Amino acid sequence: MSHLSLARYLFTRIKQCGVNHVHGVPGDFSLKALDHIPPSGMKWVGGCNELNAGYAADGYARIRGLAALCTTYGVGELSAINAIAGAYAEHVPVIHVVGTPARHLQESRACIHHSLGDGRLRVYADMYKQVTTAQANLINARNAPELIDDVIQECVTRSRPVYIELPADMVDTQVSSDRLQNALKLSAETDGKEEAIQVKDILSQLYLAKRPLILVDRGDGVEHIIDEINQFVCVSGIPTLTMPSGAGMIDASFKNYFGPHSGPIGKVNSLPYAQASDFVLAFGPMFADTQTLGWSTVPDSKVTTRIGRNSIDTFDKSTSIDSKTFMQKLIDELDVSRLEYPSNVGLESWRIPDELPSYDPSTPINQTNLWPRLNSYLQPDDIMLLAASTALLAARDFALPPRVKVIASGMWFSVGQMLPAAQGAALAQQQSTGGRTVLLEGDGSFQMTAQELSTIIKLKLNVTVFLINNGGYAYERHIHGMDADYNDIAPWRYLEAASFFGADGDQVGNYRVTTIGDLDALLANPTFQTKSGLKIVEIIVGKYDIPEKLKEVFQKAGAQTS
Amino acid sequence: MSHLSLARYLFTRIKQCGVNHVHGVPGDFSLKALDHIPPSGMKWVGGCNELNAGYAADGYARIRGLAALCTTYGVGELSAINAIAGAYAEHVPVIHVVGTPARHLQESRACIHHSLGDGRLRVYADMYKQVTTAQANLINARNAPELIDDVIQECVTRSRPVYIELPADMVDTQVSSDRLQNALKLSAETDGKEEAIQVKDILSQLYLAKRPLILVDRGDGVEHIIDEINQFVCVSGIPTLTMPSGAGMIDASFKNYFGPHSGPIGKVNSLPYAQASDFVLAFGPMFADTQTLGWSTVPDSKVTTRIGRNSIDTFDKSTSIDSKTFMQKLIDELDVSRLEYPSNVGLESWRIPDELPSYDPSTPINQTNLWPRLNSYLQPDDIMLLAASTALLAARDFALPPRVKVIASGMWFSVGQMLPAAQGAALAQQQSTGGRTVLLEGDGSFQMTAQELSTIIKLKLNVTVFLINNGGYAYERHIHGMDADYNDIAPWRYLEAASFFGADGDQVGNYRVTTIGDLDALLANPTFQTKSGLKIVEIIVGKYDIPEKLKEVFQKAGAQTS
Ligand SMILES: Cc1ncc(C[n+]2csc(CCOP(=O)(O)OP(=O)(O)O)c2C)c(N)n1
Ligand SMILES: Cc1ncc(C[n+]2csc(CCOP(=O)(O)OP(=O)(O)O)c2C)c(N)n1
Repeated sequence: MSHLSLARYLFTRIKQCGVNHVHGVPGDFSLKALDHIPPSGMKWVGGCNELNAGYAADGYARIRGLAALCTTYGVGELSAINAIAGAYAEHVPVIHVVGTPARHLQESRACIHHSLGDGRLRVYADMYKQVTTAQANLINARNAPELIDDVIQECVTRSRPVYIELPADMVDTQVSSDRLQNALKLSAETDGKEEAIQVKDILSQLYLAKRPLILVDRGDGVEHIIDEINQFVCVSGIPTLTMPSGAGMIDASFKNYFGPHSGPIGKVNSLPYAQASDFVLAFGPMFADTQTLGWSTVPDSKVTTRIGRNSIDTFDKSTSIDSKTFMQKLIDELDVSRLEYPSNVGLESWRIPDELPSYDPSTPINQTNLWPRLNSYLQPDDIMLLAASTALLAARDFALPPRVKVIASGMWFSVGQMLPAAQGAALAQQQSTGGRTVLLEGDGSFQMTAQELSTIIKLKLNVTVFLINNGGYAYERHIHGMDADYNDIAPWRYLEAASFFGADGDQVGNYRVTTIGDLDALLANPTFQTKSGLKIVEIIVGKYDIPEKLKEVFQKAGAQTS
Repeated sequence: MSHLSLARYLFTRIKQCGVNHVHGVPGDFSLKALDHIPPSGMKWVGGCNELNAGYAADGYARIRGLAALCTTYGVGELSAINAIAGAYAEHVPVIHVVGTPARHLQESRACIHHSLGDGRLRVYADMYKQVTTAQANLINARNAPELIDDVIQECVTRSRPVYIELPADMVDTQVSSDRLQNALKLSAETDGKEEAIQVKDILSQLYLAKRPLILVDRGDGVEHIIDEINQFVCVSGIPTLTMPSGAGMIDASFKNYFGPHSGPIGKVNSLPYAQASDFVLAFGPMFADTQTLGWSTVPDSKVTTRIGRNSIDTFDKSTSIDSKTFMQKLIDELDVSRLEYPSNVGLESWRIPDELPSYDPSTPINQTNLWPRLNSYLQPDDIMLLAASTALLAARDFALPPRVKVIASGMWFSVGQMLPAAQGAALAQQQSTGGRTVLLEGDGSFQMTAQELSTIIKLKLNVTVFLINNGGYAYERHIHGMDADYNDIAPWRYLEAASFFGADGDQVGNYRVTTIGDLDALLANPTFQTKSGLKIVEIIVGKYDIPEKLKEVFQKAGAQTS
């Protein structure tokens, strides 16, 4: 039996699962553990603070399938908890390793720094139980490898964050390396029986349905079965929509894919078809009020079957399954000839591209003329991140080039998340397609986490930031407080950001546009298009301006919450 | 019986307790509540993000005695939880108001944005129970005023943060204004009996003692009795020390005050006297390892009596008291003639000012020649904030001018706290003395929360930031990983900070010093000394450099935690 240190075991295991980077901020309880990252074949990515590092890990996991975050006890982990709770809400698998005080200090309930000073040293771990799907406290060399394996497995198969406590005195403890010989089983084991029953059940309902609908989002870990979902959509021909946060999940070339389910504010109103559906197969839906126009676009739960990575849920029943096995069987056993659906569902014209209206070049940019033009910047294989503000709603109707990955919040909606997430996503992308990362960001969002730009600069990542400067929280103005000072923010000089955060002159492109003429010229400029590295485009729009067709949405949102 | 809206009641009450500002970040669940701030006579202070706003509220409370923070459900409150936990650990009274979803949404466990999507809508409130001393959920108009009064009272009298949930649909609910006629009782009620017993007990022990010691810190709410403590120190003549985080608590002109209890790294070693003490009266001590050189300076708990705002604790017993009543009686009944202590405690020479060694002006600044010089910048009535890094240890021996208030972490040690705290402290100070706020900050600390500089600029506060640029986490390097990349940070252009964050040319002074000559010239420059507004002094020191006498401390710290 050969041995290695516990920290080495931990990081080696994480690396084996495809994670090449550990995000985080060091602290005295975690320092020694970090020494084991390079010899495990991974790289450390220090964030400016722990919340940013958490968001970055979330973005990394959304592209790479898994991420690791390492913070220090108390101050570090609590700073990151909002990011981890968001990953939990949106089913993003992040392994959060926390460096904790040595065991003897914990046992004696010492008055250690970063504690509350009252001996309640397990408080943070208790909090984390609420927002992670599995936890391990590595206080015992004998079972630590097994615990690590178990939580990583849970992380991946449940597609949710997990929490690992690594006491400082355990870092160099020797543990058996035996288990490392066998790769972790990262898919559920199943004898296929329950899946067969469910397939039969779903198919019989599909054969009976007259107006079936497939609705696709990215919650509940269903990105794991994205290929199978696409195959099923393709072969079945069943009318298919995505939720706004599920944009990009379905190959837009499928003729039975009708774009995002935006209801009355969509290009074509998807509500009539969806509401009259007699059977809805919903993959990983996140039915939060923000993306369902206050639940008004949520299909009737009585006719909806929800598929998650590990479960099938109907109105009154939840059944555990392995969704991959289920989907394969579903595709195999589907008898297309027995399916029925309207030959014209009334949504066909969503595909006809909006003509970009032409304006006098001196026309000021506003959020109605802006968004369709931003759409034109996207290229195949890009990652597009939508800040949790107007961007999230305004870009929901984008016509996406092939293989564009969208990162957009369907549930958590935490302002500030997307800039650090762009760091993580761009880094993960560098490992694979090498495409570009495009962030559509509000100024309020930018101010929350702006310093993470410096990590983007330091890592020389290819990120384009479209920063919409409207002097405040327009999203909120339209919900309540149109002129209230609480919706104003300080006026920053955004074009100075990259220089302040350390970029060298040629490493970054800074642009500012105020008219349609400026914008069109910039987007058409080949140097701009092909320049790599960081590009920041500050877009000036009016303080009260939002996309015309969203006004109603905001008013509704205001009414809903109160 | 007259009525007013619940939100108005809440803010009016908070205002009555001396709080003029509400810190926070708005969200759709809190927007309507914020409308009630101006008519309650208060001002809104928007932070760039919620953690910063939380830190700022903490800083405000440390100067003003109480602060208010308002965030939105889930994403907002979780982003701030590290600041509130810190306030809990260090006994800082902050009222945290959270705008929560309307009651009907909570009752139906709706799939609301900012929730985890699984109906567990009370998770965040459960977390906050761990780090606040009292909580109220204002779901009922009938008892809401009483609940508000109770938690505010708890906040002040326990000197710890409290948590108030205000559902969006309750904001405009009418409640009785009757209770507002009577000011809240913010001091404990007592018949004085227990206090009398305790005074007798303490005095009899003091009369027996041969080497008594008074040790003063700012934990446990004892700033409430700072005048009484000073009076007792003065009249008793008992040898007195402060903990490092208690610097400035005792009037330095008292001849029996011997400075900070820094043990062997102090100007004079305080350990021999402290360790041989046969009776220690410790006011609000925070005996965390970071400020006790790994607990080595903590006096024998068997001879220590700890006084908190509401309790007296000995080795084996805790008794509830009102410390104000207790202190007054203690002072009244003290018979100085019965006290005994050495006429020379061996610490007298702490007062003789270090001569500032003179160097060739071209001598590079290092952390050994730097700190005594920074000391000379301080003036009476300043607030000095010490970042939770090298600054906290290096400035512990400063000779403080009269009435200088020190904000330094004795327990929580959260890096990044002090820049936002400087915003809150400077704002609170503007309301009273009008003195200056001086922040001694590391570059790593600065990067965590840098954007709060923009709020300082927006509010035109008088803040001087001495920013020590050493390219990373020197504090950590000396604990572990001297050359490790995880202790490096990105190179920012700090002199561009103020401009980037929106300051106009004349509103800010930007300075950079690399030699002793630069530094001396700057500190002696009358324009620099008298200039109001924001001043940023970037001080360049070596990457590995720390104050000579702290090297040992760091090594010890590294050994302690693992
Ligand atoms: C962490 C967090 N805090 C507060 C909010 C409430 N909130 C929702 S939208 C918004 C404004 C975002 O502003 P900006 O990014 O400038 O976009 P705009 O509103 O101008 O489109 C805020 C503060 C939130 N969702 N998340
Ligand atoms: C929120 C938080 N994250 C991490 C740490 C661990 N930590 C302690 S000191 C330190 C470095 C501070 O760096 P800097 O402010 O540059 O000061 P220096 O070490 O150079 O004196 C860090 C990251 C902490 N205490 N708090």
